[in-house]
Amino acid sequence: MTNDSSVVAPPPLYHDVEFRVRYAETDQMGVVYHTNYLVWCEVGRTDFIRARGMSYADMERAGIGLAVSELSARFHAAARYDNMIRVRTTLAEARSRRVVFDYLIIRADTGDRLVTARTALIAVDANGRPTSFPSGIRALFERAE
Amino acid sequence: MTNDSSVVAPPPLYHDVEFRVRYAETDQMGVVYHTNYLVWCEVGRTDFIRARGMSYADMERAGIGLAVSELSARFHAAARYDNMIRVRTTLAEARSRRVVFDYLIIRADTGDRLVTARTALIAVDANGRPTSFPSGIRALFERAE
Amino acid sequence: MTNDSSVVAPPPLYHDVEFRVRYAETDQMGVVYHTNYLVWCEVGRTDFIRARGMSYADMERAGIGLAVSELSARFHAAARYDNMIRVRTTLAEARSRRVVFDYLIIRADTGDRLVTARTALIAVDANGRPTSFPSGIRALFERAE
Amino acid sequence: MTNDSSVVAPPPLYHDVEFRVRYAETDQMGVVYHTNYLVWCEVGRTDFIRARGMSYADMERAGIGLAVSELSARFHAAARYDNMIRVRTTLAEARSRRVVFDYLIIRADTGDRLVTARTALIAVDANGRPTSFPSGIRALFERAE
Repeated sequence: MTNDSSVVAPPPLYHDVEFRVRYAETDQMGVVYHTNYLVWCEVGRTDFIRARGMSYADMERAGIGLAVSELSARFHAAARYDNMIRVRTTLAEARSRRVVFDYLIIRADTGDRLVTARTALIAVDANGRPTSFPSGIRALFERAE
Repeated sequence: MTNDSSVVAPPPLYHDVEFRVRYAETDQMGVVYHTNYLVWCEVGRTDFIRARGMSYADMERAGIGLAVSELSARFHAAARYDNMIRVRTTLAEARSRRVVFDYLIIRADTGDRLVTARTALIAVDANGRPTSFPSGIRALFERAE
Repeated sequence: MTNDSSVVAPPPLYHDVEFRVRYAETDQMGVVYHTNYLVWCEVGRTDFIRARGMSYADMERAGIGLAVSELSARFHAAARYDNMIRVRTTLAEARSRRVVFDYLIIRADTGDRLVTARTALIAVDANGRPTSFPSGIRALFERAE
Repeated sequence: MTNDSSVVAPPPLYHDVEFRVRYAETDQMGVVYHTNYLVWCEVGRTDFIRARGMSYADMERAGIGLAVSELSARFHAAARYDNMIRVRTTLAEARSRRVVFDYLIIRADTGDRLVTARTALIAVDANGRPTSFPSGIRALFERAE
């Protein structure tokens, strides 16, 4: 691929975060309880946003929240206590009022695919009402598709 | 009540369970954290199975578990702390190795629709490996579609 | 005990609430993860307050919160998935800025004692700063010791 | 670094672990829900044990679990979403059937003290029955007091 040197490379399309499975996240089947993978997606999303230059905490302080409006997940294999987990978060779509993220959750040591998921999020104001992203926040998601 | 003995009424297609939102289930947006609705789906599913004559706890003691393999949800409106919640669980599909449930989560007092969700679950043995439902468990799900 | 009929009987010193153990509350030891008992204490406390005539949700809307300042617990026996649980909440102490509750968590079917716990809570305003209970809320806790 | 070969430095008395507050850990008061600090204590304890040469996951695979038998905590100040947290875990006492850990939870950036806590844990076998620590596991806790 050739690049005009005057063009700044866009930030990467995805972001990875790693952590260990907590004991509290397991259930009596001996594996991670399924809704905890979706908590991990939020950890990945938070870190993705921070890597692009603004923390989600700052976003909320600026009066803009992200509310999950749709979610889907496929569970391929189970994570176990103490496994090192890697969540890869990819921005799939960014619109004026909505962003969509894809997630790939794997075991960091073996690379085994555990869960694939997608969430759609809508911009909400401090009262939880749907709104549009202000341009400063919109820019976080630009050129990332 | 007398019944023509040749006719057995099929068990109802759905089951309702009610409970209150716990403080621990809220987040700093002032509403229920989104993954908790999916925990409630499991509460609904557990109660559905019990209403058909076997507890899920007994099912696991008999060596058969249900592992969530797919999940999707749409979030229409937010539940708040102390709201009375009703989860309606409907059996959507039952096969030899897989069952699918639909969930409708509403506020019990106002009837407001909060979340609609669907989960596919596969039968697993005590070691977490996919298996078929034994006939006794299969019967729980029959004529319910 | 004899009572002068002109004396209104004080509300009971304790309040009971019952519910079933959720699958999500178990861990890979096959029993309830220990911090969930403390979530149940909050469920008991919430129901105690409601039984005395005001919901904790209303209390927060009136600008007064209860923040846990101290907590202790002893774990006597383990609860398991699907067990019916009873939490008995007793008001142990009520002061102008602080209330103390005791909890006894048992299995509702066998009466087995599972956990005993105590929490101290301080009154906080909408900004989380320590404050005194207004008289209306103070009255909820009166004559209950 | 040179060492007199006859002197083995004892392992440190405490161990620190750091992580960020997750959104899922907050409640509608805008701060971390109080039982989550106790989950963090388990994260600290797990990491303490790993730092001494054995993972708690391996310990369980060897048939020995640690069950929390007593717990106490004081809540000094609140953690908020996205705060960097440091948990310092100190081994306070080690006996043949029981270990006691102290925890100090602070904000990693400001050093503000948030929570101090203590847990007593007893050794249990694979069936959850109290037992003694085998010598290999006992050694993990030696000279640490």
